[in-house]
Amino acid sequence: MSLVIIAPSKNNKAYWQKRLEEELKARGEDVKVEIWPEVENADKVLMAVTWKHPQESLYAYPHLKVVSSMGAGVDHILKDEHLPLHWHIVRIVDEQLTRGMSNYLLAAVLNYHKQMYHYYELQKTHSWGYSETPEVELQPGILGLGELGTDIALKLKGLGFKVSGYSRTPKDIMGISTYAGEDELETFLQQTNMLICLLPLTKNTRDYLNIEFFRKCKKGTYLINVARGSHLVEEDLITALDQGLLSGATLDVFRQEPLPKEHPFWDHPKVFITPHIASVTNPDAAIPQVAENYVRMLHNKPLLNKIDRTAGY
Amino acid sequence: MSLVIIAPSKNNKAYWQKRLEEELKARGEDVKVEIWPEVENADKVLMAVTWKHPQESLYAYPHLKVVSSMGAGVDHILKDEHLPLHWHIVRIVDEQLTRGMSNYLLAAVLNYHKQMYHYYELQKTHSWGYSETPEVELQPGILGLGELGTDIALKLKGLGFKVSGYSRTPKDIMGISTYAGEDELETFLQQTNMLICLLPLTKNTRDYLNIEFFRKCKKGTYLINVARGSHLVEEDLITALDQGLLSGATLDVFRQEPLPKEHPFWDHPKVFITPHIASVTNPDAAIPQVAENYVRMLHNKPLLNKIDRTAGY
Repeated sequence: MSLVIIAPSKNNKAYWQKRLEEELKARGEDVKVEIWPEVENADKVLMAVTWKHPQESLYAYPHLKVVSSMGAGVDHILKDEHLPLHWHIVRIVDEQLTRGMSNYLLAAVLNYHKQMYHYYELQKTHSWGYSETPEVELQPGILGLGELGTDIALKLKGLGFKVSGYSRTPKDIMGISTYAGEDELETFLQQTNMLICLLPLTKNTRDYLNIEFFRKCKKGTYLINVARGSHLVEEDLITALDQGLLSGATLDVFRQEPLPKEHPFWDHPKVFITPHIASVTNPDAAIPQVAENYVRMLHNKPLLNKIDRTAGY
Repeated sequence: MSLVIIAPSKNNKAYWQKRLEEELKARGEDVKVEIWPEVENADKVLMAVTWKHPQESLYAYPHLKVVSSMGAGVDHILKDEHLPLHWHIVRIVDEQLTRGMSNYLLAAVLNYHKQMYHYYELQKTHSWGYSETPEVELQPGILGLGELGTDIALKLKGLGFKVSGYSRTPKDIMGISTYAGEDELETFLQQTNMLICLLPLTKNTRDYLNIEFFRKCKKGTYLINVARGSHLVEEDLITALDQGLLSGATLDVFRQEPLPKEHPFWDHPKVFITPHIASVTNPDAAIPQVAENYVRMLHNKPLLNKIDRTAGY
């Protein structure tokens, strides 16, 4: 039996290999962990641990049962529409990833609220910009109420903001006004002027943030996207900013990464860019979960953090 | 009977006057509110509501009983060492001021943690600065555990940071490691690499943040001062930054405000300046407290938020 890591873009695969073998041994399983494309015996591979793998690479393993993402997202796995139904797809739930994401989002929200970049620029000209203008009341709205969305919703609520949340299926979160389904989208958008996108990427949410969506937002809404680049129709955001439908955006994810040098976002005065650093999965949190799922698979026990293939997350 | 507002630098005194008269009327008291220096009958003044008043101005009122700050700080009142002991000094406790302060501090802490200004600069050169370097573990330490210090301590704790706090007298705050008195200062400083100054300004805390203090800090500690400019010996901060004792500073308060155009802080690469905007008292929260204290004074009831004259806060 073996397990294969398929993650061409990751530079810490040797670390994953070593630590995975240790974690499996600690669970009584002597399993060989291989790194694609160097696989000794394709027949023995029962589980693949992947990050942005070449789509066809998974089909080399006739006995494959489980495909695990190396992070929270599974869109790189599910984008293959012909994925065999008997493969179980699992993902990582990492408390530190959640904390890191919420810390990034709090910085983004509060920098806008407190105008920190405005003061950062004023300092360069030795300008004292004291003002008693009251702060604009922020009404954060969270698109997507999974692990990450729920965490930031509760933290913003804890800071005293009036928080709303929107999800595909109804959710009940203490102190948060929640909305669900297409019927309630417009009501949700009228409660918010600071929109945080934490949706999973599925065929229903691809291109979700488009000009029609922005026209439904309250005028001057600020957008933060930390989910996936493909949620956002990038040229529509520029139109929405230039027409004043939105007041600005903080973006950590893009349709093409690294963001191409000539992309109009770089120089747009209302767009703040970070290079997909909002939060990264900590291998030390992820590896024991992968090992645990390998053992569960061997013993036909329920897998941790298994994806609902129909919902896509 | 009357009440006088002495606040030469404030431009909203007419609003205070109107709203204070309304709040007093709502409490059954028909009180004239005057604005210094236009006071009709100095004999009738029982209470002064002040912000950075000229020191001698209070002595014009022979029947003065209560001096109220218009904000949370009372250092502008207590700096007069000859203040008659029979004057009661009160201050404002404003939940919104506390929230605003914590929001500013969270932005400052998380901007350092997440290197947001680094990415802000990278964007200007169209540079994609993706990095998987793990974040430095932040250990926030709060100097001063009053209303504001306790609030930010608990909020940082809620984000998963290991938080320590230091105060003159021992405090017990759930989940926070607290230290008190001179004996425990060095132990406290060894637990922290992100120091937030929220001390009251008293004769004991003036010039508190000086080179001797910085030498006791963990090497590379980051400093945030949002209390008063006079807590910090400004030239000592520059020495500490240039010698690498501290890694950087975010400052909202200064010994002279506005900060003089030629001050070395403006161009120091490790200093981020904001113009005393971290948080301002909301008049609509403060005015009812002042009215309430006026009525309590008339009926010899205990005053709200009275200062301990010996402690100085």
